[in-house]
Amino acid sequence: MRKVPFITREQAEQIDSKFPTPFYIYDERGIRENAERVRKAFSWNPGFREYFAVKATPNPYIMKIMQDYDFGFDCSSSAELVLSDAVHADGEHIMFSSNDTPDEEYLQARSLGAIINLDDITHIGTLDRLFAGKFPETMSCRYNPGGVFRMSNGIMDNPGDSKYGMTKAQLFEAYEMLKARGVRHFGLHAFLASNTVTNEYYPQLAGQLFELAAEIHGALGIHFAFINLSGGVGIPYTPDGTPNDIMKIGEGVHEQYDRILVPAGMGDAAVYTEMGRFMLGPYGALVTKAIHEKHIYKEYIGVDACAANLMRPAMYGAYHHITVLGREDAVCDHLYDVTGSLCENNDKFAIDRMLPEIKMGDYLYIHDTGAHGFAMGYNYNGRLWSCELLLKEDGTVQQIRRAETLQDYFSTFDTTEFASALGL
Amino acid sequence: MRKVPFITREQAEQIDSKFPTPFYIYDERGIRENAERVRKAFSWNPGFREYFAVKATPNPYIMKIMQDYDFGFDCSSSAELVLSDAVHADGEHIMFSSNDTPDEEYLQARSLGAIINLDDITHIGTLDRLFAGKFPETMSCRYNPGGVFRMSNGIMDNPGDSKYGMTKAQLFEAYEMLKARGVRHFGLHAFLASNTVTNEYYPQLAGQLFELAAEIHGALGIHFAFINLSGGVGIPYTPDGTPNDIMKIGEGVHEQYDRILVPAGMGDAAVYTEMGRFMLGPYGALVTKAIHEKHIYKEYIGVDACAANLMRPAMYGAYHHITVLGREDAVCDHLYDVTGSLCENNDKFAIDRMLPEIKMGDYLYIHDTGAHGFAMGYNYNGRLWSCELLLKEDGTVQQIRRAETLQDYFSTFDTTEFASALGL
Repeated sequence: MRKVPFITREQAEQIDSKFPTPFYIYDERGIRENAERVRKAFSWNPGFREYFAVKATPNPYIMKIMQDYDFGFDCSSSAELVLSDAVHADGEHIMFSSNDTPDEEYLQARSLGAIINLDDITHIGTLDRLFAGKFPETMSCRYNPGGVFRMSNGIMDNPGDSKYGMTKAQLFEAYEMLKARGVRHFGLHAFLASNTVTNEYYPQLAGQLFELAAEIHGALGIHFAFINLSGGVGIPYTPDGTPNDIMKIGEGVHEQYDRILVPAGMGDAAVYTEMGRFMLGPYGALVTKAIHEKHIYKEYIGVDACAANLMRPAMYGAYHHITVLGREDAVCDHLYDVTGSLCENNDKFAIDRMLPEIKMGDYLYIHDTGAHGFAMGYNYNGRLWSCELLLKEDGTVQQIRRAETLQDYFSTFDTTEFASALGL
Repeated sequence: MRKVPFITREQAEQIDSKFPTPFYIYDERGIRENAERVRKAFSWNPGFREYFAVKATPNPYIMKIMQDYDFGFDCSSSAELVLSDAVHADGEHIMFSSNDTPDEEYLQARSLGAIINLDDITHIGTLDRLFAGKFPETMSCRYNPGGVFRMSNGIMDNPGDSKYGMTKAQLFEAYEMLKARGVRHFGLHAFLASNTVTNEYYPQLAGQLFELAAEIHGALGIHFAFINLSGGVGIPYTPDGTPNDIMKIGEGVHEQYDRILVPAGMGDAAVYTEMGRFMLGPYGALVTKAIHEKHIYKEYIGVDACAANLMRPAMYGAYHHITVLGREDAVCDHLYDVTGSLCENNDKFAIDRMLPEIKMGDYLYIHDTGAHGFAMGYNYNGRLWSCELLLKEDGTVQQIRRAETLQDYFSTFDTTEFASALGL
């Protein structure tokens, strides 16, 4: 599918004059239309709730948009719990899906009334110690089936190699232990594959989880309040990919639900999701300016963003499509490496990429960076985080996070003798 | 070589009671002994100077130690220039070795009197615009020979694929252009391979650069004030590696110098280096506590540090040796994955690692994290940077950077409506 920027060169110029490049910009209209589709796709399930994966785009303005659809928040750290609290999410709208969890974060989640999704059976002992016998009414357990997870299109992942969740035997034991501690409503959660671009993943996972829940329900007589399909529904980063059809995905889960849960007398179970990339990925862009061209053994375009602003290409070798704004329809007849300024040779947004001719001052629009983009920024070489902007439905642009300054970067030296020399 | 921690379990406990884990700690004695060796190895060259690569460990206390050996600072960003200025380095002690450089950073480097090492010939045009005809007296150019760089032990790297430096033809042209702009003293710089663990790299590179400098000197009659061997001298991360012998490396460079530069009448040229990893890597450790154990398809130990504190294993699959403090001599008969808490399955400090049995509360000492460790921290999942501590020669521990707080993490929301809800 052709990748179309949601701003024009003229808009980029206007924005740049107020909020200099590089900047992240999110498209409110796109986010809302997609959120609406997600809600519709699962409207057959009265209890359905998407818990937006805060780690993907940890910004309260984005979280506020999610709340308009009654979505909640998937949190796995203290910072994410604080963000959820800052937008006044109640406990029911916070899923604490953490692993290797520090004590204080369990206490924080408990004090917010968040739903706790236990990653491991050993954590029940931790909670015995922390909660002094007062367990929440509703709790969830995370499942890891082990082995290899395969889909009919050949896509697979290796849950058996992942650090998350419990074995089936542990799951039975954990639910019994929780039941004995007064928990009355239960959830079941699993994450088996990352960034799947197939309408089959959620339905296949749902079938597996629904059957397991029915089996546990039969054996232990416990009440499943929800089945949490977690994340994993992805987006195609390359233009030749076909995006997931969330309506079809919702229908596929519906079929499994009617086939398995309804006959098992579990037709009151809610379906939960924890999508991040699917909710935000395509609706965010990193916009950067070409500031250098270099002609050596290859042709390089240097831009004013770097891996500190977007790490996925450096960390995973990830592809992000690039559009040269104002030259959307030009022929891609130039072979470039697009680089940032880090003293690190993997700091390249594109390698051997065919693009239209790029002139200094051109705006490069890096697609599909709305999720796990800004959030994974680092400060290597002392490079700073950019600002985040929201393109509102009325066409205006709102700054929803200011750019970092050197003072921010140096802030943890404030108690040292160098504080004033560093401008603190 | 057996990897020996520079603190004991007792010391870790004491430190933890004041500066809770995870923490970075650096060994002043080790840093100084190594710095002394570097100085000695190149003492045959009166102008020798190591320019410590600030990006490796951007902390002014570490930089102050370097200054005791008359070392300077290799900087490639505004933040690194500010740090150098904060420790009162003069221009002669600052090498600005940048690429894809923003205008304002050239101006900043110029105002500090830093030596500018030009990455690309096109940057001369940039400086024409910025410096209004007033070029510094001394300037350097960065060389990229292209192709593949091979050493006799088979180690190689691909400068031809790297974004740095100029071709040979461009180099000749650049020196002429700079000469025409009044520059009187010149440097030559190249970086051809990363983290080499062989005594051969610097001598081989030096031979290549000395010959090239002599050729340029012969052709253009320009004066080479220095040859900058850049970084690339590494450390063995695994215990079976043999560390570089810096005395041998110094001698190897000396032989090339006497063979090439002295006969060419260039015996006044200084040799510069820009080491980071070799200067700090082995003298820093990340110390973290075991807080969870998990028994599923593999055995997991969850610790209180995560990839936010040390990214190299997640980003590069890098090996870092781990010692369980207090169990230095125990048999390594347990197979573990050591994990952090990120919602990211690559957040593992070790995969399938044989270690002694680990009990909850044990301190894990992660070796060789003194360089590119803390510096590459990110804040994914809202995880925070740890503190940095210096183990001084007298055995006391000084905090040289405090741990990050949630307020630091949220600081760029200070101008938004969520400021107070986020504790700002």
